[in-house]
Amino acid sequence: MIGAGAEAAGRRFYLDDLHVGQRFASAAHAIDEAQIIAFAAQFDPQPFHLDDEAARATLFGGLAASGWHTAAITMRLNVEGGLPLAGGILGAGGEISWPKATRPGDILVVESEVIDIKPSRSRPDRGMVTVRSDTRNQRGEIVQTLMARLVVPRRPRRDGTGDVAAATPVG
Amino acid sequence: MIGAGAEAAGRRFYLDDLHVGQRFASAAHAIDEAQIIAFAAQFDPQPFHLDDEAARATLFGGLAASGWHTAAITMRLNVEGGLPLAGGILGAGGEISWPKATRPGDILVVESEVIDIKPSRSRPDRGMVTVRSDTRNQRGEIVQTLMARLVVPRRPRRDGTGDVAAATPVG
Repeated sequence: MIGAGAEAAGRRFYLDDLHVGQRFASAAHAIDEAQIIAFAAQFDPQPFHLDDEAARATLFGGLAASGWHTAAITMRLNVEGGLPLAGGILGAGGEISWPKATRPGDILVVESEVIDIKPSRSRPDRGMVTVRSDTRNQRGEIVQTLMARLVVPRRPRRDGTGDVAAATPVG
Repeated sequence: MIGAGAEAAGRRFYLDDLHVGQRFASAAHAIDEAQIIAFAAQFDPQPFHLDDEAARATLFGGLAASGWHTAAITMRLNVEGGLPLAGGILGAGGEISWPKATRPGDILVVESEVIDIKPSRSRPDRGMVTVRSDTRNQRGEIVQTLMARLVVPRRPRRDGTGDVAAATPVG
């Protein structure tokens, strides 16, 4: 498993460097009640994300982070070394699920695995990579699974020949 | 199409009130450069979301909002009357795609349509509803499509009999 060390060392992975089954891990993020309420007030102002007392009477049984907050933290962790792709993390879309709520005090870590790699036929400088990112809390429970379709550039050729060098670089 | 008026009138839709093909529309949200940069700085700190000059050299060709920012704004618009569900908007997950970038100056509106309704067998007080929410800019272009799986409560029965009344209310 490749973690924040790869990023710290400045290594970034091009399409050519990836293989199915390859795994990466992020650093950790501790989420607290203030963060949960601040995000919810801005983007998801519902009682179960804003107020612990009000949340007790709901399906959540207590304050829970917005799923979109969990998604945003997952992105932050991946951008900051959890998923060190050349050109950055460029998502075309994906499937997301939240099997368990993120709670105040949770410490989140993202583990990502390369599921599929498809070089582009029309754009030889890039490809589409499917990555599953599981976001887990400190008990190892999955709070979010994201199956993301990402645009990843091929390693630029230095000899000035071929489609790859002629194409517009990404990132 | 049912818009913010339904919400303003306080009407909220239970599972029993929904039918496939039913549509809802949100109010509008204007996004600017400052919002895009603020969100990116917190959750998606990549050059194409942080700095217009740096973004010009990338696939985006100019400053673009994080897809997760578009998702968060979509949630806000739906929570504030765009999708007036009883019990609030409780997502179990979904499929998301960003066919076009959200740009500074865009005015976003969400149109939602009920795609599928499945009463729960094990929990007679609720069901799972699939809703497609298309987020469009002022030119009518879709910047995000979200096919969301939502938990929606059935209308509580008042007579005190039956599984529904006995179940824990949601929201």
